[in-house]
Amino acid sequence: MSYTTQMDAAKKGILTAQMKDVLANEAISQDVLFERLAKGTIAIPANKNHKSLFGFGVGLGLRTKVNVNLGVSEDCCDPEKEYEKAVEAVRMKADAIMDLSTFGKTKEFRRRLVADCNVMLGTVPMYDAVAKYGKNIKAMTKDDLFNVVEEHCEDGIDFITVHAGLNRVAAERVDRNPRKTGIVSRGGSILYEWMKLNDRENPFYEDYDRLLEICKRYDVTLSLGDGLRPGSLKDATDAPQIQEMIFLGELTKAAWAENVQVMIEGPGHVPLNEIVANMQLEKKLCHGAPFYVLGPLVTDVAPGYDHITSAIGGAIAASSGADFLCYVTPAEHLRLPDLQDMRDGLVATRIAAHAGDIAKGIPGAIEWDHKMSDARGKLQWANMLNTAMDPDKAIAYRKSSMPSLDEHVCTMCGDLCPIRRTSAKDLVAQEG
Amino acid sequence: MSYTTQMDAAKKGILTAQMKDVLANEAISQDVLFERLAKGTIAIPANKNHKSLFGFGVGLGLRTKVNVNLGVSEDCCDPEKEYEKAVEAVRMKADAIMDLSTFGKTKEFRRRLVADCNVMLGTVPMYDAVAKYGKNIKAMTKDDLFNVVEEHCEDGIDFITVHAGLNRVAAERVDRNPRKTGIVSRGGSILYEWMKLNDRENPFYEDYDRLLEICKRYDVTLSLGDGLRPGSLKDATDAPQIQEMIFLGELTKAAWAENVQVMIEGPGHVPLNEIVANMQLEKKLCHGAPFYVLGPLVTDVAPGYDHITSAIGGAIAASSGADFLCYVTPAEHLRLPDLQDMRDGLVATRIAAHAGDIAKGIPGAIEWDHKMSDARGKLQWANMLNTAMDPDKAIAYRKSSMPSLDEHVCTMCGDLCPIRRTSAKDLVAQEG
Repeated sequence: MSYTTQMDAAKKGILTAQMKDVLANEAISQDVLFERLAKGTIAIPANKNHKSLFGFGVGLGLRTKVNVNLGVSEDCCDPEKEYEKAVEAVRMKADAIMDLSTFGKTKEFRRRLVADCNVMLGTVPMYDAVAKYGKNIKAMTKDDLFNVVEEHCEDGIDFITVHAGLNRVAAERVDRNPRKTGIVSRGGSILYEWMKLNDRENPFYEDYDRLLEICKRYDVTLSLGDGLRPGSLKDATDAPQIQEMIFLGELTKAAWAENVQVMIEGPGHVPLNEIVANMQLEKKLCHGAPFYVLGPLVTDVAPGYDHITSAIGGAIAASSGADFLCYVTPAEHLRLPDLQDMRDGLVATRIAAHAGDIAKGIPGAIEWDHKMSDARGKLQWANMLNTAMDPDKAIAYRKSSMPSLDEHVCTMCGDLCPIRRTSAKDLVAQEG
Repeated sequence: MSYTTQMDAAKKGILTAQMKDVLANEAISQDVLFERLAKGTIAIPANKNHKSLFGFGVGLGLRTKVNVNLGVSEDCCDPEKEYEKAVEAVRMKADAIMDLSTFGKTKEFRRRLVADCNVMLGTVPMYDAVAKYGKNIKAMTKDDLFNVVEEHCEDGIDFITVHAGLNRVAAERVDRNPRKTGIVSRGGSILYEWMKLNDRENPFYEDYDRLLEICKRYDVTLSLGDGLRPGSLKDATDAPQIQEMIFLGELTKAAWAENVQVMIEGPGHVPLNEIVANMQLEKKLCHGAPFYVLGPLVTDVAPGYDHITSAIGGAIAASSGADFLCYVTPAEHLRLPDLQDMRDGLVATRIAAHAGDIAKGIPGAIEWDHKMSDARGKLQWANMLNTAMDPDKAIAYRKSSMPSLDEHVCTMCGDLCPIRRTSAKDLVAQEG
């Protein structure tokens, strides 16, 4: 029996290889997976041309996934460095990589990632349109835009960000509701500019069926972009943001009618006390579609530490409904991230996802913590270090400062270590 | 008119110099400050012998404060390095420093901090008891313990952690309710050991009046320690923790009856979805006393990144009632923090406190974010960098990677900067 997309397969009761991957790694039954894929509350972004992919599911009841952004740009134009980031991101357990290249031989780089990376791969085709057709936005034709989309799909990209909901009505909301930081989405701002300069409707909104036809052909998941996401606490949860989300909800239903899988992208900068409302709003307006969240950053004032401002927001988001977190690095708002920024951003985002998974009761999540704490309660150092989310950093810290009197403790408390003095009094070396 | 403590002064309507400091820096009226100090929901830790102190308030309606731990220990025994940390912590806007020294000339170091630091200073006298009387815990007498407390108070320490609530009943709860990580409080574990070895009640519980008399004499705020705080997610919100909190609530009332100011110390390691309940429980059981929180860490699995696991928990805690956050550094669980760990821990904790202040509507909090976002929306780089929580790091990042085509943008988006292309199109250099 044949199928077009994972959603179509689920409706037909066909168990795909990618579904098997998901079943092998998540505590979900085949029946529930089928049901949620069919309904759209779970997506498995898996392009038919991405042969190296290991299947990941994104959505209700599954582990919160984490994405790493990278790519070649005019200011950071060494593809080898970006490729090195990709390899390291996979090693450090990213679930997805978005190639945001805007410069150079983007096709070559993209195809190399598809060939070599077994995690979900995403792109923003509008960025590549700039790389391909130049920065004269006005001169781009509709066909130019759709051709780039088709090219990415053919190349094997699993999910593409398309700002189809930023239509003329949503754009008017920006014009009528002045914001502190205007439009901060690159893809969104290019489309907004195109619409203004050409006095035309957003091509992806106007010819949405054409977009769906392409996505269906390759089983590319549509990541409906939030071109009007807030870039400051002040702009959070405002009329433009919510207006666009209303359209994203309608576009979600239209995509599902064609069996095209959907994720919704979300904010941005959001005060801590508005995050839960934002999650609930997305689940309601977008009919339970998986929510793919950037941050949210809970304060605007800490450039250099936005992996932390976004880990706070991401953890709360994940605990209250977000299914997929896009990483933010310490370089955000300041420069392109380097390799170390990538590492710091990835681990911070993995922490947020895991804290959220514990809170929402994802099976297997808190068991990892119990394993660590069992080792900690017995002062089993090798176990502790190997169980750490980033063993390399934990080991380096441990090695840099060894206690002088008792190898079982650390220099934090020395031989006043409370665990040593109470529960692990009679410790003898018990580890290999 | 004379007064014993800030609480006593408030009850008598006396406006102290420290209250004036608070009024100058917080959006609170004199009447409300008097009322809350009298009731105990705000404390102003201000030892009469700490002459250099600038007064800080901790509690309801005030900015969430941040504490930095440091101190000389057997494994890290250079007082100059610890002093350097203190100076840097004050420069980077810590509101309090706890001197946790357990080794060497602790009195000399403590008095140097009192003389030179204008922020709140705290200690855990039990640590110093070990430095002073050695590690034979059993042999310490009651008088030894009270003598150390008195010495710290006389030296000018503003608040002292005393685990007075870890009495025999609470200790029995630990014995009867086995934990994954036992007792993880150093001060708590030493007292527990003393009680077990001597088969005696906790001296600070038994002779609580003697403790109150000393605190009142110098106006030292009693920071009632949580010796049974959870050291793992598994142990969070368990019988021993809550049992101790019940006693802390009773001790709070007894202290207030003598006009001794009180703060309550809180967990520890807590799953994200239990944090709000923990905050509510403290406010209820301890009658609205200011809550001084360590973390909480929302996962056990990320040693090397516990400034982030605790920033997530701290932000949620602050947004739902915590008044004072103790910093956690990347070195937690692995070694004593060095100077850079101190910086990273302090900034992460300041972010958590600020995110919480925005959420709980502390006047002036979100205005800082608006200032940053105003600068960001106009691409005013000098303004952005100077408004940052840590300008040094923001400036270093910015300088390390300047855009090649347009000085107004950054290399993250280059000349595809959405702000530049939409709201800041017509930018000319407008900054000094």
